[in-house]
Amino acid sequence: MVFDMHDNIFMLAGPVKIHPRVLKAMNTPSIGHRSPEFTAINEELRELTKYLFQTKGEVAIITGSGTAGMEAAISSLVKKGDKILAIDNGKFGNRMATLAKMYGDATILTYPWGSPPDLGKIEEILSKGETKVMAFVHNETSTGLTNPLEDIAKICKKHDVLLVVDGITSVGGIDVPVDKLGIDICITGSQKCVAAPAGLALLSISERALEEMHDNGTYYLNLKKYVEKIRGGQTPYTPSVHLHLALLEALRMLKEEGLHNRIKRTARIAEACRSAMEAIGLELFPDKRYASNTVTAVKYPDGITDKQIRGRLKEEYGIVIAGSQAPHKGEFFRIGHMGLVQFRELLATVACLEVVLAKAGWKFDRGAGVAAVEEYM
Amino acid sequence: MVFDMHDNIFMLAGPVKIHPRVLKAMNTPSIGHRSPEFTAINEELRELTKYLFQTKGEVAIITGSGTAGMEAAISSLVKKGDKILAIDNGKFGNRMATLAKMYGDATILTYPWGSPPDLGKIEEILSKGETKVMAFVHNETSTGLTNPLEDIAKICKKHDVLLVVDGITSVGGIDVPVDKLGIDICITGSQKCVAAPAGLALLSISERALEEMHDNGTYYLNLKKYVEKIRGGQTPYTPSVHLHLALLEALRMLKEEGLHNRIKRTARIAEACRSAMEAIGLELFPDKRYASNTVTAVKYPDGITDKQIRGRLKEEYGIVIAGSQAPHKGEFFRIGHMGLVQFRELLATVACLEVVLAKAGWKFDRGAGVAAVEEYM
Repeated sequence: MVFDMHDNIFMLAGPVKIHPRVLKAMNTPSIGHRSPEFTAINEELRELTKYLFQTKGEVAIITGSGTAGMEAAISSLVKKGDKILAIDNGKFGNRMATLAKMYGDATILTYPWGSPPDLGKIEEILSKGETKVMAFVHNETSTGLTNPLEDIAKICKKHDVLLVVDGITSVGGIDVPVDKLGIDICITGSQKCVAAPAGLALLSISERALEEMHDNGTYYLNLKKYVEKIRGGQTPYTPSVHLHLALLEALRMLKEEGLHNRIKRTARIAEACRSAMEAIGLELFPDKRYASNTVTAVKYPDGITDKQIRGRLKEEYGIVIAGSQAPHKGEFFRIGHMGLVQFRELLATVACLEVVLAKAGWKFDRGAGVAAVEEYM
Repeated sequence: MVFDMHDNIFMLAGPVKIHPRVLKAMNTPSIGHRSPEFTAINEELRELTKYLFQTKGEVAIITGSGTAGMEAAISSLVKKGDKILAIDNGKFGNRMATLAKMYGDATILTYPWGSPPDLGKIEEILSKGETKVMAFVHNETSTGLTNPLEDIAKICKKHDVLLVVDGITSVGGIDVPVDKLGIDICITGSQKCVAAPAGLALLSISERALEEMHDNGTYYLNLKKYVEKIRGGQTPYTPSVHLHLALLEALRMLKEEGLHNRIKRTARIAEACRSAMEAIGLELFPDKRYASNTVTAVKYPDGITDKQIRGRLKEEYGIVIAGSQAPHKGEFFRIGHMGLVQFRELLATVACLEVVLAKAGWKFDRGAGVAAVEEYM
């Protein structure tokens, strides 16, 4: 079978499946980005993004990837000499650490991929009272690990440290109540749990973060300007109007489902997925106490290759899952189940996975994975 | 009449009218940005963007606005202490000057909006042999003025100075043969002469520019990384796949028409537009020897307001044109005629403009503007 780009089951850890309603929203002629029509779109987006982040604070929308959002947060908040603590326990944690070192006087806590950070060590560093900002990745997409947000947020609050959270693959899929937890800047991307096309970074910004921001970072990613402009329903530079239209429709769908209903659905599907992997006899890649609800990373058994599993799933059955990235390339696969993923897609994925695993010689009770999923339905 | 966002004649100076083929290209389910399918899309984009820039050099595509492209160019090429000369004779020239000051040791030549730079002064500064980079905006969208690219490029070549050109509203509408002129970095935006949706910055990069680039600018806008990745059909961070699909279709359309045919059509429509304004008795805002072929800026006669003209055109006749920006707000209007604009749209615009001008009390030969356009058809 030749892979069909237009007709498949799409289970990446972002981009994710996009609903036809969202695609249709982009089928709109040009709209002037300084027009009242676009201002109205932005005002609705402003309300819906506040709902998404569970915040009464400000939000910004930047045309750019999630990485642009990360750099906007760090470069706008941290100045040369400011002490910043970052956690590096995955590909995106490593990126956060790189940004922390670029813009501030950084301390990096490094852990193996798939391992959580040592909370005692964080407490120890923050209790010295020198750290201005703590930054970490909530859900490490690269490893399927969710870092302990609530615990870290508590430590930051205790020591009055500004908290920057990369919630790119958690916000909208895992509960991230920004105001309640005291997150000062939280970043997410349009192509993850929100299920819109890629190309927009969304950021929540606390009053305190806004006061601490400066203009000495970059020009395009100066968050202060985005906040000033969004208050009038505008953006500082030409935004991608079509991506704003898509995001608007995707957020309307999120609101219709209800944020907490989506979070619950995502959790249930994640539990079913983990249970299926166990039933098939496969092991999770991350410490399973920290397994993510938006992406499940699963080790390949010895002797079974990425090509045999992920390659065949795509080419023979039209099921798209993710592989693992350097330095763990080929060691595990990742099933994304955020956004609009339903049980029907998980079932098809697990069933096809059983087929390719069996063909590759893996021994397990055929049907056990599917049966495990059914238990959750 | 209530303005219809979905059905109007759209004559802004970017974003511009988008063809249904281009909108349709975005009606595609998600594609993994690390997949061979997306690599194939990027390889075709690479060829087509080289055609657009008339270059054998490298190209980069960044998810972000044209401003992101400007910052990528300056921050990747210019280091603290590097001498850079920039021209400020409009809103975007001012932005280029700001970026030059942020990243280098800048000299700024400032001229009134609508006035060209003094070539003798440029020659004088560059002949000192201290300047590393010269940066300016080719087509100043804010004023309808085209700066003398060929002349400036010659001076830069003579003194071996790296040349950065903001071709955001010229590339694809005015001839910008990058290799022939020796432009080291040329920037354009997806939503201008190429007629795709906003959200992508495109950059041509010479071999010499690539050698001079460093990693000490920003993280997201580090051009070196985009060049490294595009050579494998990839992007360093998650790109907006849907905007890439739209850009691909828009560039295919440009190739079908032929770059130089599009440039000629744009010039002809611009001449017709200027001739119509003259026939109606209106004056251009910029020095008319430097009038742009992609956007025509026209002064309001004394006593005639933006609301009477631009407001009525939009509200009563569904014709969208641009106003003028601070510090010249309300002084002139701008008709964009780049990309896919055809005579039929210009005719409707000029005819409706005659109606609203007459209603506002302006005296002229009714029909003269339309007749002037017809002469060019």
